[in-house]
This record gives sequence, structure tokens and C-alpha cells, in this order.
Amino acid sequence: MRVAILAHEKFPGDAKTAVGVLRYSDHDVVAVLDRSRAGERVQDHLPDVQDAPIVEGMADAPACDALLIGIAPIGGGFEESWRPDVRVAIERGCDVIAGLHALLTDDEEFVELAADHDVELHDVREPPDDLTVAAGTAGDVDAHVVLTVGTDCSTGKMTGVFELRDAARERGLDAAVVPTGQTGIMITGWGIAIDRVISDFAAGATERLVEQAGDHDVLFVEGQGAIAHPAYSGVTAALLHGGQPDSLVCCHVAGRDRVGGYEAFEIPDHGWYASLYESMADPISGATVDAGLLNTRTLNRSEANTALDAYGSKLGVPVTDPVRDEIGPVLDAVLPENLRERN
Amino acid sequence: MRVAILAHEKFPGDAKTAVGVLRYSDHDVVAVLDRSRAGERVQDHLPDVQDAPIVEGMADAPACDALLIGIAPIGGGFEESWRPDVRVAIERGCDVIAGLHALLTDDEEFVELAADHDVELHDVREPPDDLTVAAGTAGDVDAHVVLTVGTDCSTGKMTGVFELRDAARERGLDAAVVPTGQTGIMITGWGIAIDRVISDFAAGATERLVEQAGDHDVLFVEGQGAIAHPAYSGVTAALLHGGQPDSLVCCHVAGRDRVGGYEAFEIPDHGWYASLYESMADPISGATVDAGLLNTRTLNRSEANTALDAYGSKLGVPVTDPVRDEIGPVLDAVLPENLRERN
Repeated sequence: MRVAILAHEKFPGDAKTAVGVLRYSDHDVVAVLDRSRAGERVQDHLPDVQDAPIVEGMADAPACDALLIGIAPIGGGFEESWRPDVRVAIERGCDVIAGLHALLTDDEEFVELAADHDVELHDVREPPDDLTVAAGTAGDVDAHVVLTVGTDCSTGKMTGVFELRDAARERGLDAAVVPTGQTGIMITGWGIAIDRVISDFAAGATERLVEQAGDHDVLFVEGQGAIAHPAYSGVTAALLHGGQPDSLVCCHVAGRDRVGGYEAFEIPDHGWYASLYESMADPISGATVDAGLLNTRTLNRSEANTALDAYGSKLGVPVTDPVRDEIGPVLDAVLPENLRERN
Repeated sequence: MRVAILAHEKFPGDAKTAVGVLRYSDHDVVAVLDRSRAGERVQDHLPDVQDAPIVEGMADAPACDALLIGIAPIGGGFEESWRPDVRVAIERGCDVIAGLHALLTDDEEFVELAADHDVELHDVREPPDDLTVAAGTAGDVDAHVVLTVGTDCSTGKMTGVFELRDAARERGLDAAVVPTGQTGIMITGWGIAIDRVISDFAAGATERLVEQAGDHDVLFVEGQGAIAHPAYSGVTAALLHGGQPDSLVCCHVAGRDRVGGYEAFEIPDHGWYASLYESMADPISGATVDAGLLNTRTLNRSEANTALDAYGSKLGVPVTDPVRDEIGPVLDAVLPENLRERN
């Protein structure tokens, strides 16, 4: 599928979805829309992902099949400044794919325009309508289940599962990501946005995803939020208990010592935090924190090494920066012996 | 308000909502509908709540303003055998109030009939449509906030908050319950069913409730689920972090050693479980488990005393059976000194 990705004024640093699609999906990205960087190219910023021109708006994008909304503001609203691009996309015959709380299919103008031009509006964050409570059975799947968890939102839990998947596949393992948020769903084409599921069914939705993918060798379940986050811990708990993982990978951003957007709250000691995850998992799946991922983007090499050493020593398990360094040791740490031996 | 309460084949043991309304609300209950007990009276079963006749169906109920659905099957569906009673209620000009996942307002027959007879259908479990993510500010309210938590669902968390409220009011305190489930909402006439809120907003909904009621002396927030429950921990986490309580009261049913409906899962050691709640609360509100409530209904007096001693010694705080024994020591344990001194 040929896609354009909307990321106005946020590319690349604050455009997690856009960057995820560029890096991990099979889509052919024909353009990134960012009016603050028009004329630049993706590879000016991200040398290791597929390249594409950055354009002012949809009118300047090459022919494509769909426009992806590649940024998600806090709260998940639709920014009115994006409206002209969505309008042009529909008029050009492109589907529109978004992962916002505010639904494209609730927008009267877009619904009418989409009908006129025979294109589809996909709200990937909208969950199926036949979800139920968890049965407590995700632990019965054959696959080895690994969940990324973290000390905060936006700590690399989504990046982690795709990097682990790709590394496992390179070793010949049958590995899959279980996507639980809009970016993962946009990248893989399946999944459920757990944060959009009603609380009672959030663990059940996670269980359904794990069971659907349960015949792979290993599943990397995309984590969300943080288990002691002031706003999103409920989502994290539902993933942890609904997905019944065997192994946890704890993600952190080097230097972040307060919860993003909630600066009144300190991020606890990382070793303590990992133990909290293990205590929470203990009565249900008994998962342990077997590895850590650290985002060291803002540090130079020497600082990054120091931060990685400190983080690894707090957690007492192998850690790495999955973007900057080898992920092999972390993959080894989360795989059971029978899957490690295949290498 | 004069109400009839539907509780077919479940009264009183499996009719938590019906019994809660009889015991704690200001409504005048004119009849309980239970076809398996028609001709009996409420006080034959529950001597300490308001009395009412138990009748075969709505046609036999005295005049009233509303029919409350007072039972909630697992899954929250509408039982078709209730349909004739709801139909008769509407035809008699009664509003219908339900807390089911299945909405009255999604039932075409009821919607049409209600319009014809000018009555209202209230789905109390349906959350407001303007909820947002938590801001992390519930801890700023003036009120002292107490949350009931537990080792499982149906451990007395709802009963606990109403008993604590009533005991606090007897001491002259300005106390209120913050209802987070259908029964509490039916009893008090306000609240949000947190389990029905989308995961991302569940902490935010809790925060809104606490802030709305924040000018009381003390708030007793109705807990839900359990923090290590295989299906409902997400709801519990949202209450714990969204509500930012000062104090926790841990509820358990004597003799229950496996999670109800999920017998593959043992309930962990109670002292360990209380510590898990405290660890989860620590980075956000720092709440501690200051008291415990134990449902000893199935035990004789001597067994109950033994169970209470054992539970108190595991938790290391005052415990009581709030239905059978005095709740005063537990109230003292959760109140701050300035509110205790008012007594």
C-alpha cells in the first residue's frame, strides 16, 4: 500500500506513529506531510528508515492509496489545521487511516465526502464491538509471550517489540508483534487499541489478541502506559494480567526522572519499579523482568554507556538501547532455552 | 422516590444491588420482585433493612415511581425472562433504572414503549460522554479520601463504603460515598460506573468524581475488582491512581482462597496483597492499608473471631466484619487525627 503520513510540526521527534510506520511497516511511504519541514527529506532526519519527501500538504504528495494520521496529540483530538489535508486526500480518492480518540467516522464532513468519493475512513483505535471479560486463559497459548513495560508512556515499548520481532526473525524464529495501540495497528494491519476498550473488557481484549496469535514461536506484546502512572496504569494492568506474559522487558528513557506531562510525580527507582511489575505479575502469570531497554537518544556515546551500565545494574538483567546498539543479548534474555538454542 | 426492585430467583443472597438499595438508599421500596419467593417479605431474610413485600411480578407491585433492576448476571446481559416486568412497569408509568452492560436504551421495544408512556429509561452504567484523561490532581481535594480495595470481586467494598459513611455521619462528620459501580449509583443517585469507561479515561473519571465531592470532610470511594485480578485489575488500578486516596481499607471474604470464577488463580497471602496495594499507591498518593474488612457470613461466631484475628494479624491493622460487628475501630484507623478528634 502506498501511503502519505500526516505529521505537521511534529516530525520526527514527536511523531511516534509516523516514524514507526516508516521504520517497521511494509507500506510504501510516498510523502510525509509536515508544513514546518517542507522541502526536506525523511533521510535528512532518519538515515536508517525508508526515505520519502517531506511536503507542505496533501496537495503536494505523490499519488497514493491512503493518508495516515501519523501524530497523536495528548487527549487524542483531531486538530482542525489538519482538515484541509484530509479533505484533499479524500477528494484524491485516498482512504484515511487514523488512531485518534476523535473518530473520523463521527465527522459529518468527512463521512459525506468519503461517500461521495468512494473511499474508506478507518479509525484503527475503535475496538471490535463483541469484546467480553477475560477468561484468564492467555497463559495457555503455545507461544512464548513477552510484554514490554516501562517507567512511563513513550519509553520505547512499541519500538522494542518491533526491534525484538525483527531480531527474532533474523534468527529464523516465527515471531510476531501483538499490537495494542494505534501505531502498532497501523504498522501491522491488525490489533486492538486497548486504551479505547471499556475497562471491564481491556484484559479480555488483550487475551483475545494473544490467543489469536498464539501459534507463533514467540509473541512480543506491545505495552502501554506504566503500572504506576497517574492516568494510564489501568491500561497497563489489563495488558499485564490479560496477556499473561512469560517475560517482561522494562523500558525507560535515560535522564527522565519525572512522569511526562505529570511532573508532580517522580519516576521511582528503576529496580524498585521492576520489582513492582514482578509483584503485580506474580499471582497471575509469574512473569519476571528479564531485560531492559533504554532510550539514550539525548546522550553522547560515553554518557549512554554510563546510563546503560547504571540501568542494567538497577535491573540486574541485560539492557540495551535497541535503536543504537545490538538487541541480541536482550532477545537471549527473554527467550526460553528451547528457542535460544535454535540460533 | 417509591421503587420496586427486580431480583428474580436471586434475592437476597445473589442480589447485591437490591440489598444495597434496601439497606443504604433513601428510596421507599414498595416491593421486591422475586418469583421464587412470592408471598414472603424482605424482613423474613434481612431483619435489619427496610421491609417490603416480595411479589411474583410487576403486576403485583404497589404503585411506585420506578422499577430498579436489582440483579446483575455475570457479563451484564438482560435476561429475557425480565421483559414482561419491564413492559408492565413502563405501561404503569414507571421509569426503569438499570445498571447492565446491555442498555435499556438500546432495546427498541422498551424505547418505543417508554416514549408512548412518557417514562424514562436510565442506564446508570452508561458513563458521561465528556470524560478525559486524568490530570493527576485528585490528591489536591480538601476531603480525606478513603478507598476500599480487596482480594477479589464481591468482597464487601461497596458495603464497606456505606457502612463507613453511616458510621462517620453518626459522629457528625460530613461524609459521602463516591459511587463507582451500578449499585452505588442506584443507591446515591450519582456516580460513574468506572468499569464501563474506556481504559484511557477510567482514572480521569475517578478523579472527576473525587473532585466533585471534594468539599466533604471525608470521602469513601467505592472500590472495584482487585489489583491482581486476572480480568479486572485495570479498573482497580484506575481507581487507585485516579482517585489518589489517602487511606485504603482491604476487603476479603473469610475462607475464599481462590479468585471467584477464576479458580485457577489462588488469592495470595493477605499481608503480601496489602503490601502490593501499598507499593502500587506509593509513587502516586502514598496511601497505606490502614484497616481491613472481613465478610464472615458463612462462619459461626467463634470461627468468625478466629478468622478476624488471623486477618488482622496478616494486615497488621484493625479489622472488623462491618455487617456483624462494630465498624468504629476501622473508622478510627482510616481517619486523620483532626477528624478523629471531632468524636
